[in-house]
Amino acid sequence: MGSQPYRSPSTGRHVRAVLFDTFGTVVDWRTGVAREVAAFAAERGQELDAEAFADHWRALYQPALEAIRTGTREFATLDTLHRENLDQVLRRHGFDPERLDAGVLEELNKSWHRLPPWPDSVEGLAAIHRRYIVGPLSNGNTSLLLDMARNAGLPWDVIIGSDMTRAYKPLPQAYLRTAEFLDLKPGEVMLAAAHNSDLHAARTAGLATAFIARPTEYGPGQTADLAPESDWDLAASSIPDLADRLGA
Amino acid sequence: MGSQPYRSPSTGRHVRAVLFDTFGTVVDWRTGVAREVAAFAAERGQELDAEAFADHWRALYQPALEAIRTGTREFATLDTLHRENLDQVLRRHGFDPERLDAGVLEELNKSWHRLPPWPDSVEGLAAIHRRYIVGPLSNGNTSLLLDMARNAGLPWDVIIGSDMTRAYKPLPQAYLRTAEFLDLKPGEVMLAAAHNSDLHAARTAGLATAFIARPTEYGPGQTADLAPESDWDLAASSIPDLADRLGA
Repeated sequence: MGSQPYRSPSTGRHVRAVLFDTFGTVVDWRTGVAREVAAFAAERGQELDAEAFADHWRALYQPALEAIRTGTREFATLDTLHRENLDQVLRRHGFDPERLDAGVLEELNKSWHRLPPWPDSVEGLAAIHRRYIVGPLSNGNTSLLLDMARNAGLPWDVIIGSDMTRAYKPLPQAYLRTAEFLDLKPGEVMLAAAHNSDLHAARTAGLATAFIARPTEYGPGQTADLAPESDWDLAASSIPDLADRLGA
Repeated sequence: MGSQPYRSPSTGRHVRAVLFDTFGTVVDWRTGVAREVAAFAAERGQELDAEAFADHWRALYQPALEAIRTGTREFATLDTLHRENLDQVLRRHGFDPERLDAGVLEELNKSWHRLPPWPDSVEGLAAIHRRYIVGPLSNGNTSLLLDMARNAGLPWDVIIGSDMTRAYKPLPQAYLRTAEFLDLKPGEVMLAAAHNSDLHAARTAGLATAFIARPTEYGPGQTADLAPESDWDLAASSIPDLADRLGA
């Protein structure tokens, strides 16, 4: 461990907080959602491609956020958007949501609260936590991120949900308001993410950046985000690898 | 450990989150501030009654908040208010803040970020955390509460600062917006506090309530808040005692 925290070449500042994109970077949404969807279908004696169901559900995420980012729609939490999108995905996979129990669907929607961490996440976050503030910087709402943390054992110091910033990434306010709640300059905050687009937006907002490779987030045939696409401050193969590079 | 979480007789609901007033309930502000103020005075070779200084600084807290609660003044963080009040207290104790280094005063202001926990706090919170969501419900801003948690080792699951609710206790919105961020009904949230007035306001907002006795918060001559003044759901002599009463 060096005597000084990591200094970002791009921001010229020592990093005080390392904040993580969650879906895909810290937790494995595809496996987690598919597992719960498969159990849901099996209980009803129905055949289902659970991975495809998870992919379809996830594919409705950005269009739903975009309506809010552009101001076409008032702010709504990710829980609300997931729940609306669930109805669409159920129909596509041969279920009629109107004929299913509302409590069951609410529980299924909460599969996003119970996503499993990647095998290295907890160990890596614990290491970084010893030297830096750690937290999510996610489009998830606070209660979702809190449940996820308790279920997966993620040692966050602080959770600043999108319902607190009232802004969805990649809008600059999502990054800047988070730094403001921490009373840090943007350049003292590092975003760690498996998605180059997220890092681009964070850099534009003035944050330090770290790429973490998650080459199977979208399953074995993933083609995007296999490698860093810019000169991010750091690029790591896992969260413990990032901890090493941060001197944590 | 029982199979069910604690059910509040007054709200009729099972408690899911136990949130704590911090200054006086979880941390010992008087000892912590006095210690740093004494060091500050000693470095300058000045005599000072450090406990009186801490008491005077704390006494300016409610009037400063009241201007914001009543709308006379726009929202400002507790860090900002503490910093303004520090100038007043320094003058009262024979220092001219204009002749002191701004960085030194900023550091002294951060003594509120470094307050020591009461000896039972960390152990008690860790016990409650195993079964319930734990967090502060404080007039402190997020960065203050985060620094306090890292310095004192407080195992919060989540920190919802007053800069997130934009409301200072005892306004009902301070309690209600906190419950909303947690996606809980007010009656599923318990406020644990050493101050009867805080508990009154929390109960009026629909929260469950627990009194924790801190009979030396204001020093050996304390006369107020020595005992519960209403039929709060629970009354405890310490945070571990509260953990026992919650079945945690």
